Amino acid sequence: MASRRKLLTLESINPSIRAAKVPILGSITIRASEIQREIEQGIHKPFPRITSCCYGDMQMMGHRPRTFFRQVAALCTYPDLLESAQFPEDAKTRARAILKTLDSGSVGSYNPDYIAQTLPQKIASYVTRRDNGAPSDPRNIIVCSGASQAVLSALSLVVNEEPELKMGVLVPVPCYPLYTDTIALCGGVMLPYYPEEERGWAVSASRIRESLSAARKRCVPRVICVINPGNPTGHVLTPENISELILLAAEEKLLIFADEVYQDNVFAPGAVFQSFKKVLYQMGAEYSERVQLMSVHSISKGISGECGFRAGYIEFVNIDPAVFEFLYILKSFDIPAVIGALMQEVVLDPPQAGDPSYETFMKEKETLLHNLSENAQNTEKILNQTPGIHCNPIQGGLYAFPRVKIPERAIRLAQDRGQEPDDFFCHLLLEDTGIVLCSGNAFGQAAGTYHIRITLLHPIDELKSILQKITQFHTRFLAEYS
Amino acid sequence: MASRRKLLTLESINPSIRAAKVPILGSITIRASEIQREIEQGIHKPFPRITSCCYGDMQMMGHRPRTFFRQVAALCTYPDLLESAQFPEDAKTRARAILKTLDSGSVGSYNPDYIAQTLPQKIASYVTRRDNGAPSDPRNIIVCSGASQAVLSALSLVVNEEPELKMGVLVPVPCYPLYTDTIALCGGVMLPYYPEEERGWAVSASRIRESLSAARKRCVPRVICVINPGNPTGHVLTPENISELILLAAEEKLLIFADEVYQDNVFAPGAVFQSFKKVLYQMGAEYSERVQLMSVHSISKGISGECGFRAGYIEFVNIDPAVFEFLYILKSFDIPAVIGALMQEVVLDPPQAGDPSYETFMKEKETLLHNLSENAQNTEKILNQTPGIHCNPIQGGLYAFPRVKIPERAIRLAQDRGQEPDDFFCHLLLEDTGIVLCSGNAFGQAAGTYHIRITLLHPIDELKSILQKITQFHTRFLAEYS
Repeated sequence: MASRRKLLTLESINPSIRAAKVPILGSITIRASEIQREIEQGIHKPFPRITSCCYGDMQMMGHRPRTFFRQVAALCTYPDLLESAQFPEDAKTRARAILKTLDSGSVGSYNPDYIAQTLPQKIASYVTRRDNGAPSDPRNIIVCSGASQAVLSALSLVVNEEPELKMGVLVPVPCYPLYTDTIALCGGVMLPYYPEEERGWAVSASRIRESLSAARKRCVPRVICVINPGNPTGHVLTPENISELILLAAEEKLLIFADEVYQDNVFAPGAVFQSFKKVLYQMGAEYSERVQLMSVHSISKGISGECGFRAGYIEFVNIDPAVFEFLYILKSFDIPAVIGALMQEVVLDPPQAGDPSYETFMKEKETLLHNLSENAQNTEKILNQTPGIHCNPIQGGLYAFPRVKIPERAIRLAQDRGQEPDDFFCHLLLEDTGIVLCSGNAFGQAAGTYHIRITLLHPIDELKSILQKITQFHTRFLAEYS
Repeated sequence: MASRRKLLTLESINPSIRAAKVPILGSITIRASEIQREIEQGIHKPFPRITSCCYGDMQMMGHRPRTFFRQVAALCTYPDLLESAQFPEDAKTRARAILKTLDSGSVGSYNPDYIAQTLPQKIASYVTRRDNGAPSDPRNIIVCSGASQAVLSALSLVVNEEPELKMGVLVPVPCYPLYTDTIALCGGVMLPYYPEEERGWAVSASRIRESLSAARKRCVPRVICVINPGNPTGHVLTPENISELILLAAEEKLLIFADEVYQDNVFAPGAVFQSFKKVLYQMGAEYSERVQLMSVHSISKGISGECGFRAGYIEFVNIDPAVFEFLYILKSFDIPAVIGALMQEVVLDPPQAGDPSYETFMKEKETLLHNLSENAQNTEKILNQTPGIHCNPIQGGLYAFPRVKIPERAIRLAQDRGQEPDDFFCHLLLEDTGIVLCSGNAFGQAAGTYHIRITLLHPIDELKSILQKITQFHTRFLAEYS
């Protein structure tokens, strides 16, 4: 007779996984879906439709892909098209060159050599171009199926459950939830550090240093994660700030994990992306040959926004090659889609002046960056005209993360309902306007402060109108609950 | 001053990862690459080139992709092609239907709803068609980026390091190395069981039952993995054998993990693939409502062989929905490529009679299956004519796993060199013929037996010639070392 006891139950699953935060289809998103269904059923609402301002998914938000990238991908998927007049010559030339490096010329093979050798060589060339000639060794570059998997693979190597003291990982707060979950999965301890909102989200190395001695009582701090440009903050670190963090890492024996996936989304006047690697090399051999660094990039954001194609990479600096052997084990479970991988190659080496596709490519790229830049400026302007809302300069990334005032009475009401105060605000906003925002608590925030995250991916006029609705609602909210 | 001690070193990496077996670019593959380079440098060898017989990668082995699948993928990648006369109407209709279910009609979005809802519905319909109407709930189906990731996610949930007794996982031996590594990564204990070579690799439930009481002294056996059709054995389980294993799982409180990725690669006369799910449902509610089952399938093998596109799925049976919440956390690190996912949809629902692409599709499919079937028959015939080699009937999958006699003197010589005896044989074969085989020890084998794994993906005449070279060499090898 079959046993009535089931084996895999909630109680019996792997405790490291149970420790991870349940991923957030948060209550706001769930309620937004309900409202959408109600509208479709003809139930009257004070707005005609739900307006989502949550996502950093460019194409979901209506941005068209870069024509050249998709042309090369289509040609590689179905090489019969190489004879078609519908494609420009440079796309065909690029596709032929890539197909020549693939096993049997097919994107349908695992292509281990392309993934482990050919593509890392192309990435290393890109890194060297980007970083003013700083050396990059293809053997230190691992191609992944996107940054999430890269973060998990890389942190899994370091973070582990020790019998006595766990590994500590410094993580900026606010921070998108990936890191919290990864560290929980790996059995590590998250050590939050707080970029200073009042200094435009700059990171204070000295404040991190102070917090480390307390942290050492409960774990062994081994990694500092940095997200530059910031998600959700939109802050771009200065070279001086990066250099301070490298000094900190060297002194405190921390490995630097640099999440640099928004490196091409920098648009504020004067803001320039500098990679941790570049600054590290400028600091001389004492640092560049010793400080351990992992840097992550992908095709999901930047000028491509091809998150559905899943490709990214990690570059390792000063990591013992013997460690790589083990990273390859993790990687054997994360075999990237070849079509995504070759798109990574093309994204890092787009059409150049004189190529048939150059003009279209530049126009598409500039339209995207112009749109982001206008949206960032309008967001700052509209929000900062509103008493009770403050938005720091948005220098890069895809989001604004303004601070919103929540009156005491609203905070108490939220607490009575078992809600976070910023969730309370976002729920009311949703019911009144149909606008869906991410509330700050999903990212973490300094005690007593409340924020909302707004994507900058809407069309310019649409975002203006959304921002006006948010500010008008917040003004009414303040009046009602103050 | 920067510290001279590095943080992430071989000694300091996560011990679970250190416990995993270093992945095998085995010594034979490494030597084969060296020989290839020597040939390119003009060094004389007794053969003109290296002939690899290792891989189950159809397209690397020169098989062309199915035209229809690639047409739909190209149309979805670059929808301007929907106006092109170069594509048949059914491919366009299918692409339009898929694009309609995607966020903003783009494969470049994450498409969470397509991955989590639309595609699982299509997969559930396929499973029900395949299993004579056995119910399949889309909510129990999780789309992954290939079977490797699916195995890791699923087993991570169950297998975990317990303070006292670890989880045990029954794994068939021989078995491709994925499971060994996964179990090590998850901190579990591998419990080998041995399909009986003398009974054509049939699995004996009673022998597994006997081995369990000894196993219970050192761990808690919780999972039994089954690979059907077998890799590397090529055995297809009978419904009776499956039913015995289900009874065993019910009695011994084991979760069944069924790796069914070769379900479409069955070609021996009389052999029919039956899924564990189908047999489970035929056994009535006492079992079908209680025994926990996870079944894995993908687009990497079967009639598509699109391993470079990375898509697969797990169907869960009788798993507590609360467990799924946590599986979704793991899944948030394994976001499948949308283009691979939509290819999974098309592979499970290929062109039907009357569709413009039907004839081409059927011809391509039959050519592939005919090629495999001929190769399987020729392999059995040629190998079994050779004294010292025995090959069981190959019913399905993509490989032969014949047993080869290694004389005592060769075994001792191998031991003197610190080599496995089958590696010793494969190395000599490589130097003499340029043929690269996987040796049996990479898969595990019963003590004192030696095997080689040969892919069945070569063109028919080419494989015959390879087999003749192998048998001739083995005959000389026996003469020399007996």
